[in-house]
Amino acid sequence: MTLIKKLQQTMHDENIDMLYFDEPLTVAYLTGFESEPHERVVAVLVFKDKVWMIVPELERQAAKTAAVCDFILSYRDEVSPCSLLKDALKDESDTIKTVGVDEHSLVVSRYHALEDVFSNAAFINATALIQHLRVIKQPHEINIMKEAGRLADKALEIGMSSLKNGITEAEVVALIEYEIKKHGVEKMSFPTMVLFGDRAASPHGNPGSRKLQPNEWVLFDLGVVYHGYTSDMTRTVVYGKADKKTQEIYKVVKDAQENAQAFVKPGVQAGDIDRTARQHIEKAGYGEYFSHRLGHGLGKSVHEYPNIAPDVALKIAENMCFSIEPGIYIEEYYGVRIEDCVYVTESGAIPFTRTTKELIELPITE
Amino acid sequence: MTLIKKLQQTMHDENIDMLYFDEPLTVAYLTGFESEPHERVVAVLVFKDKVWMIVPELERQAAKTAAVCDFILSYRDEVSPCSLLKDALKDESDTIKTVGVDEHSLVVSRYHALEDVFSNAAFINATALIQHLRVIKQPHEINIMKEAGRLADKALEIGMSSLKNGITEAEVVALIEYEIKKHGVEKMSFPTMVLFGDRAASPHGNPGSRKLQPNEWVLFDLGVVYHGYTSDMTRTVVYGKADKKTQEIYKVVKDAQENAQAFVKPGVQAGDIDRTARQHIEKAGYGEYFSHRLGHGLGKSVHEYPNIAPDVALKIAENMCFSIEPGIYIEEYYGVRIEDCVYVTESGAIPFTRTTKELIELPITE
Repeated sequence: MTLIKKLQQTMHDENIDMLYFDEPLTVAYLTGFESEPHERVVAVLVFKDKVWMIVPELERQAAKTAAVCDFILSYRDEVSPCSLLKDALKDESDTIKTVGVDEHSLVVSRYHALEDVFSNAAFINATALIQHLRVIKQPHEINIMKEAGRLADKALEIGMSSLKNGITEAEVVALIEYEIKKHGVEKMSFPTMVLFGDRAASPHGNPGSRKLQPNEWVLFDLGVVYHGYTSDMTRTVVYGKADKKTQEIYKVVKDAQENAQAFVKPGVQAGDIDRTARQHIEKAGYGEYFSHRLGHGLGKSVHEYPNIAPDVALKIAENMCFSIEPGIYIEEYYGVRIEDCVYVTESGAIPFTRTTKELIELPITE
Repeated sequence: MTLIKKLQQTMHDENIDMLYFDEPLTVAYLTGFESEPHERVVAVLVFKDKVWMIVPELERQAAKTAAVCDFILSYRDEVSPCSLLKDALKDESDTIKTVGVDEHSLVVSRYHALEDVFSNAAFINATALIQHLRVIKQPHEINIMKEAGRLADKALEIGMSSLKNGITEAEVVALIEYEIKKHGVEKMSFPTMVLFGDRAASPHGNPGSRKLQPNEWVLFDLGVVYHGYTSDMTRTVVYGKADKKTQEIYKVVKDAQENAQAFVKPGVQAGDIDRTARQHIEKAGYGEYFSHRLGHGLGKSVHEYPNIAPDVALKIAENMCFSIEPGIYIEEYYGVRIEDCVYVTESGAIPFTRTTKELIELPITE
């Protein structure tokens, strides 16, 4: 059954007359049309018996070529798309009694504009509906994500082999992104993060002009977009030799990551995956230094439903995809994070990225 | 007067008790704290007498260092920020009678969560309020944007000098982004666009594996982020020699761009700037091939208020910044666009980018 047919089945079951989505990745997911509309509207409207799209005039031709839908309504910049929609629907808009929207992505101003078009309708939150569709990846999606994972491994390899005395974080980032694009990567799934030494103690740091010195730790957090799907991985490696203390902390994080990954199978709760890693770090005495959730879903977006976090009640199912990324961050001293993204099979989690999680000590290069 | 004081003055005048903003660039604009929170909330709450922020726990330290505010409420991933806010405000939340939000960026789910915290309040749309503040750039913002413009010129130069037989669009993009980052650029303001030949006829095309051939046109649309501010420029150049017909079309676009730019001064209407360019293109017989607005505001964001589009009633004022970018796109044949972003002074528009708009014919390189 196609995605749209699945949605329409749910609409029949739950008595929803129309679904409206304008989050660009949801639009791409449902119609095949990828776009970056900035502040312009690109939307898909799923009715019980047809699918419409709204696109800016300058995207009309591209949408016509790429999108699977019954009708494309295109608008010029000076026209309100909702007023066009109202005209195009004529009396039909009065027969729409229930409209579902994704409240997690729809902005209030467009919500009000839709309320004006469908003035007889009750609005309901369809966030869960689209999340539950997107969260279970189809085989072709997982195949693309495997390739995105392979390219992330490649990007990490490029980064590691570029390390030498005095190179800056920003230079390593630029090299990685330049070289990996030669391998067919369209873009990175987020700004590549390369942090040296104590700078890795900030879980969301920005690469800068800090110069690499011997025996410093280097944190790489990176991923690529490949055919509309993302990868995401983190490795923390030593440029030189690790001391005893940092080796010990590294092992705590590695075991937490591996324990959590081994725990994953269909039927377990998302919150319990988080707990598996968290308890391991707590028992080792570093609980206060693990300040974020264990993981996040990924697919077309590098951060999407579900959260793998404390107390999240979500039964893990086959073909869900998410990150497992525990970390320990000790301010002004040291930070380590290890992350693989996995897909769930009957027999457990399989990572998209294959780089070893054993401690990597790289040679010092003048 | 600081930005916050200006907002608080307006709040007094318009009887608004609290303003809530969570658009990351607005938060950075008002507090100085830059972040990429993905799906997490980073928000600024402006009260009549104080400023609060809401940040994820893992951003607490960074916010404390960077942000100008009176109190930072930080939350762990497993806690709802709005329930924390409710607790922190105690009875004070009942005294808030009017809450302003930016309906153009606030998503419906957070809107509902705020309605729950401020259950006695009327909600009003504060989009215009923050837009009117952000639209008039301060001298230090314009100085940074000049540097962002200079770096865009540099990036274009890198791109033009990389052209040779057989190079692909994607390779040129990778080279530009790699080289320009060595000049202190944090990131591009949008994915760099390089399109060859008839591919430039799609105003929003994606660079790919198309190989450059002699006497093709090349469209560059690019910009950088520098110290939190953006640049944006477009040039269409010939790799080799232009034929008569394409030269003629180029001149129509160039004159349209220059006429519109010369028309800009404080007091004119935004819609009339668009009309100046549009009428020129229409008179030359290409009206149907100019399918988008003339321009957009830019600053912290590369696309922001205002629109420079047909019939937009907005009086242009000193220190507004926006693009002027007419284009002619003839499907399967040829596309040309010329864009400069400008700031408005008493005596007219001054472009941030200085690359010539005269037709550039580049040497063919084996």
